[in-house]
Amino acid sequence: MIFSSSLLENAVNEFARLPGIGKKTALRLVLHLIKKDIAEVNNFSQAISKMREEIHFCSRCHNISDKEICNICANGSRKNDIICVVETIRDVIAIESTQQFNGLYHVLGGIISPLDGIGPAQLKIDSLVNRIATEKNEEIIFALSPNIQGDTTIYYISKKLKDYNIKITTIARGIAFGGELEYADEMTLARSISNRIPVENYETNNK
Amino acid sequence: MIFSSSLLENAVNEFARLPGIGKKTALRLVLHLIKKDIAEVNNFSQAISKMREEIHFCSRCHNISDKEICNICANGSRKNDIICVVETIRDVIAIESTQQFNGLYHVLGGIISPLDGIGPAQLKIDSLVNRIATEKNEEIIFALSPNIQGDTTIYYISKKLKDYNIKITTIARGIAFGGELEYADEMTLARSISNRIPVENYETNNK
Repeated sequence: MIFSSSLLENAVNEFARLPGIGKKTALRLVLHLIKKDIAEVNNFSQAISKMREEIHFCSRCHNISDKEICNICANGSRKNDIICVVETIRDVIAIESTQQFNGLYHVLGGIISPLDGIGPAQLKIDSLVNRIATEKNEEIIFALSPNIQGDTTIYYISKKLKDYNIKITTIARGIAFGGELEYADEMTLARSISNRIPVENYETNNK
Repeated sequence: MIFSSSLLENAVNEFARLPGIGKKTALRLVLHLIKKDIAEVNNFSQAISKMREEIHFCSRCHNISDKEICNICANGSRKNDIICVVETIRDVIAIESTQQFNGLYHVLGGIISPLDGIGPAQLKIDSLVNRIATEKNEEIIFALSPNIQGDTTIYYISKKLKDYNIKITTIARGIAFGGELEYADEMTLARSISNRIPVENYETNNK
């Protein structure tokens, strides 16, 4: 693409460095912003800069935060004896959006995956063990990816926690709500049968 | 989506206001920027703000420009007696990228489209007629959308220019290079036959 304006070209190039945004999309976004008021565009760019400059990672759970301790950890009305262990900030947002969990989180920053060069040392596992050692937690819920790496991570952390008197659980895996049995893969279907739940224990969102 | 950080939430909301970017994509982009250096993120936001604050529209051709007169109009080595009339800035970028046109442009800002409430008064038609009246142009090339609105606009402007001694042309319409005859629509195929070109006049990019 040949631009007659270097201001335009710079803005397009900056947008095109974002993941999944090509030059044509970048140009479309920039031409959209040109039509907006200067104040509106400044709001956009200031929100991005301010976010990057002032964002913290919670020193307790490693979730993204405006302050030293995140809103979730600082919220006195949440159950602080249940920790949900997740891989990323995105998972915290997903679980928070269900409004079904009222405990705290611990963001590992990934899962153990030797092929990708990610071992326990790269993850926030030590800080999780420290939390369990110092806080009086009742339960730890693993909400990790349903694959070999996720299972390895659960196994590794569980072994580290074997001396602590804490209940360790993992989120239910099975047929997705609204999913159809015939399209489920064999592994999922087999596990959902072996991990079947008595109907009297089955919880719905409707109660 | 429920965010535990208002800094994150603001940044995601700002991104999600851009066309074609939903909340999930916005979150993905913001989480990408969080991983980058502060300086790099500031480069991004400053390029956007600076572009919006300092951008001009060329007072001669209405193309986007860093200065009062755009690079193309100010370039002495271009043929200043040929004007290519286009709808948008995007069309200028597209034609410039072919590196086949060495004249000047005139950006109308759209085409006559009564159903969308766009009449001649909303477009830079008067300023085009003024240019033709004051500059000694030899040829005006219309590169507008190949539809009824485009043809209407060409007809309207041509009538306004009938007292000036200027050659009026339109870009060739026909079968796209690499296109297949059987998939061309009837209108395009019929016109490409009635507007056939003697082979000795046929220009290729290869010469």
